[in-house]
Amino acid sequence: MIAASTLSHSDVTMLLLSLGVLLGLARAFGEVCRRFNQPSVIGELLAGIVLGPTVLGALWPDGFAALFPREGNLPIALQGLTTIAITLFLLVAGLEVDLSTIWRRRRAAFRLGLFGMLIPFAATLPVGLLLPARLDAGPEVTRTLFALFLATAMSISALPVIAKILIDLRLFRSDMGMMVIAAAVFNDLVGWLVFAVILASAGHAASGGFPVWMSIVLTLIFVLGMLTVGRILIDRALPWIQAHTSWPAGVLAFAMVLGILSAAFTEWIGVHAIFGAFIFGVALGDSRHLRANTRTTIDHFISFIFAPIFFASIGLRVDFLRNFDLPLVVLVLVLATVGKVGGSLLAARASGTGRRESWAIGFALNARGAMEIILGLIALEAGLIGERLFVALVIMALVTSMTAGSLVQFVLGRQRVVSFANHASPKTFLPSLEARTRRDAIAELARAAAEAAGIDARAVEDTVWNRERVVGSAMTNGVAIPQARLSGLSHPIVAVGISRAGIDFDAPDGQPVRLILLLLTPKSEAALQLRLLASMARAFQEARLVDRVVEQCRTWTEFLALIRTEVEQRAGGGNGA
Amino acid sequence: MIAASTLSHSDVTMLLLSLGVLLGLARAFGEVCRRFNQPSVIGELLAGIVLGPTVLGALWPDGFAALFPREGNLPIALQGLTTIAITLFLLVAGLEVDLSTIWRRRRAAFRLGLFGMLIPFAATLPVGLLLPARLDAGPEVTRTLFALFLATAMSISALPVIAKILIDLRLFRSDMGMMVIAAAVFNDLVGWLVFAVILASAGHAASGGFPVWMSIVLTLIFVLGMLTVGRILIDRALPWIQAHTSWPAGVLAFAMVLGILSAAFTEWIGVHAIFGAFIFGVALGDSRHLRANTRTTIDHFISFIFAPIFFASIGLRVDFLRNFDLPLVVLVLVLATVGKVGGSLLAARASGTGRRESWAIGFALNARGAMEIILGLIALEAGLIGERLFVALVIMALVTSMTAGSLVQFVLGRQRVVSFANHASPKTFLPSLEARTRRDAIAELARAAAEAAGIDARAVEDTVWNRERVVGSAMTNGVAIPQARLSGLSHPIVAVGISRAGIDFDAPDGQPVRLILLLLTPKSEAALQLRLLASMARAFQEARLVDRVVEQCRTWTEFLALIRTEVEQRAGGGNGA
Repeated sequence: MIAASTLSHSDVTMLLLSLGVLLGLARAFGEVCRRFNQPSVIGELLAGIVLGPTVLGALWPDGFAALFPREGNLPIALQGLTTIAITLFLLVAGLEVDLSTIWRRRRAAFRLGLFGMLIPFAATLPVGLLLPARLDAGPEVTRTLFALFLATAMSISALPVIAKILIDLRLFRSDMGMMVIAAAVFNDLVGWLVFAVILASAGHAASGGFPVWMSIVLTLIFVLGMLTVGRILIDRALPWIQAHTSWPAGVLAFAMVLGILSAAFTEWIGVHAIFGAFIFGVALGDSRHLRANTRTTIDHFISFIFAPIFFASIGLRVDFLRNFDLPLVVLVLVLATVGKVGGSLLAARASGTGRRESWAIGFALNARGAMEIILGLIALEAGLIGERLFVALVIMALVTSMTAGSLVQFVLGRQRVVSFANHASPKTFLPSLEARTRRDAIAELARAAAEAAGIDARAVEDTVWNRERVVGSAMTNGVAIPQARLSGLSHPIVAVGISRAGIDFDAPDGQPVRLILLLLTPKSEAALQLRLLASMARAFQEARLVDRVVEQCRTWTEFLALIRTEVEQRAGGGNGA
Repeated sequence: MIAASTLSHSDVTMLLLSLGVLLGLARAFGEVCRRFNQPSVIGELLAGIVLGPTVLGALWPDGFAALFPREGNLPIALQGLTTIAITLFLLVAGLEVDLSTIWRRRRAAFRLGLFGMLIPFAATLPVGLLLPARLDAGPEVTRTLFALFLATAMSISALPVIAKILIDLRLFRSDMGMMVIAAAVFNDLVGWLVFAVILASAGHAASGGFPVWMSIVLTLIFVLGMLTVGRILIDRALPWIQAHTSWPAGVLAFAMVLGILSAAFTEWIGVHAIFGAFIFGVALGDSRHLRANTRTTIDHFISFIFAPIFFASIGLRVDFLRNFDLPLVVLVLVLATVGKVGGSLLAARASGTGRRESWAIGFALNARGAMEIILGLIALEAGLIGERLFVALVIMALVTSMTAGSLVQFVLGRQRVVSFANHASPKTFLPSLEARTRRDAIAELARAAAEAAGIDARAVEDTVWNRERVVGSAMTNGVAIPQARLSGLSHPIVAVGISRAGIDFDAPDGQPVRLILLLLTPKSEAALQLRLLASMARAFQEARLVDRVVEQCRTWTEFLALIRTEVEQRAGGGNGA
């Protein structure tokens, strides 16, 4: 074998161990965040902070040094992996940019996107020019470049977080939703382009290579070429690839290879690898020939495996406690929020949008999410900013992302999609009812529900039964949803009963009922009752799913797993990083 | 930022460039192999040989040195990536091992698997003991260990290649097919276990760490624990994960994290990382709670992206031309084939299997595929064997894999699944028929088909029409398949016509026909005609697909893309590496 630098036996052991621990903790923390309806990127970052110098390094320096050494082969191997991870993550981010959305709403998107960028940009620029040292400018950067970077960092948005918020509030397909998305796409494109120019300029000052003007010209040629000729060529190539290569291997490899080579090109001309992957992703995602399940395979693997590794690895590099500078954090947070919310609000009002909606647009576009963190990390690596400012940018990104959803919800008075499954529990899941009659089945479920709620079973049973006698609760497909509104209840309770033998519920289609969902809601919340009822009806509109519940679900966990993977997945999700 | 070993700007550029080129060429060559119905691993290896010292390094040493340097950070970063790739590839290989298949056919599998291993093992052992130097034993190995390794290497099978051959010949679900699969699974499990023990012994001699007996005991404890307690715990954990984490993120991460940590464990105890990933994959794949689409996501990304990178990287490390030793290659090939085919044949005959089928079983189990190459590479890295023997093992693996399918087909006289799409072409695809009547439509398609075949159009039209008048060719869903058997034809011709307006074909369901498939076959091949007809009927049994063809397909490429991705994908496939 040719002699070469190689990983030793213990290198391999430690690489796998550190990778497994990093990914495991990142996903676990990410899940906790999603449980509280927050972007998973927050948990992934936090996992890195726990495993990095901030916590593990402070508490157990030897363990940290063994798991994530600073010298030798391991950091190189890990960095190679995170470089690929972030490159592919930006490819996926590019896929989500839908050029036709902007084009269809180009006037509103242009106005909202441009002013939503220009106002925070203009507000931040003088601060950056006047206070570079206080703001923790990097060592190898001019005052102008630093101010330009800071202004750009304040002006961008985070498309995935914003999309997730809009989907959660069922606003994604609304006029307002599409306008916000179009503006965010515009922000993303322009923001990254400006950042690319800044990087090219800084790269020249720092390391040599191409002259600045050449880097900028090449960047513009690349972007324009990729979004015009490149886009058309990709659209032509995809059907050929799907016809003449094995599927989906050919398309997957096509996307990966060209994404990676685009990244290599932009890195070479002095911008940054991820910029090329992002622009290629935009061009690829625009093709109507890219199948939904190809997107899904790329998206799942990259969002759920590569992205957590990358975001967790950020926490490994920086000590977040030692570099926490409260006045700087507050300043960045105020500058970002006032500029962005204010700018977007003004632009929306000027376009004739109502007051409440304009505030909602401002709050939505204020979310910075993963994009801000990536921008900050690259700036840190390029010497544009110091570690204190990086930490402040990360915290700003997290705070704006975490608050955006609740603020939009608050100003609009919208409510999230509800799922009946959140109100059931192992205690109220009866996988094989003993009852053989309608009355007995209701009594059996009422007892379980009353016990879980801590109220009187008899009263529940009577109220449900009185309603049932008047308006039968059986629907089609062998499902019945008896219900009652009770004054003694503080929150909704759902009980789920399965009868494999079937019970006569006097159903309109004459079928025996095999799945019974008892729904109890507080007397005051009529709207919630209707929404939970709709959630149940929607879940079991397909006979196939009822069959699977009746045949397969013997435990609460199996039932919940089926609902989460078959029903709620359909309703829309995505990563929301 | 904490000072550390880091990748420079030019390191990142070259890493992305080399990775893009490697993956791109590997997938392209892999596709060519699949076109000739050969495992794609052959093309992937070849791509590495072209980019490696064998071709690129010999023709353009500077280019090779720049793209794949031997020193510095780049080989480390690339090796980190290929280590992860091969670990995950073995996880997928483990997923394909179905323990219940062996269990259900335990007697046949045990007999066939055991004798199919023992006979080549016994035949090779003395050769290895007598001729270690001629066979190119490694520098750091005892004569006994070398002979044991060689015997193991001759005795294993390649489950994925064998499964692909059986699927292609529609034998996968047959009795013989299941017996072969069960024996191959048995071979894989026992072979890797023996190899793990050899590695543990060699590792001790070479590098220290655990004493040999300790490594072996830990390996056995790991395997037994994972396949009993571990398997049950995984089966219990999966529903909980699917119920309580976002889907499929939670399951994907669960599989990756535990696979990587299992790999770290076996690497640590002195076996090899991939062994842990493989055994974990077996335990995970056995759970009935692992959904088919989770398997698919893992499988697609790893088989189509990670595996090509790994197999191509093998060609980068070894000069295949300089280490090509013809007598050694022939010796290895003969030893492997005679031992394996003979052993399996004897075992099958002894169990009462017929002569033809026994030969087929022997040829099928002779395929070594990717597994042999991985085994050889690890042995090379561990110093068990030299580069000449490695090259001989790789060639043996390729030759046995490439010939197995044809040999099984030959002895059984079975034929591959046919697809009508292979007999159509851009010339015979008419995306908008001018005809408005049945007669005109047949004439229009007959002209196109006759021109493509170089025969007389009038004769074709008359033959088809005479048949059509007697037995109408319209089926359900708006599809018609007029056909004729012609003496002047050398191979089948299919012409595809779409009429958006619809043509009255006197269909049994009264619907107008919108998709017409004209099928012409040589007079002598009645069976082929029936099989092509079945392939068409199967393709368009769903009305949804007919609608998509009529609405979306304006070009031959679009039509072929739809058939390949929607119809043939359904019929089964997999990677077949």
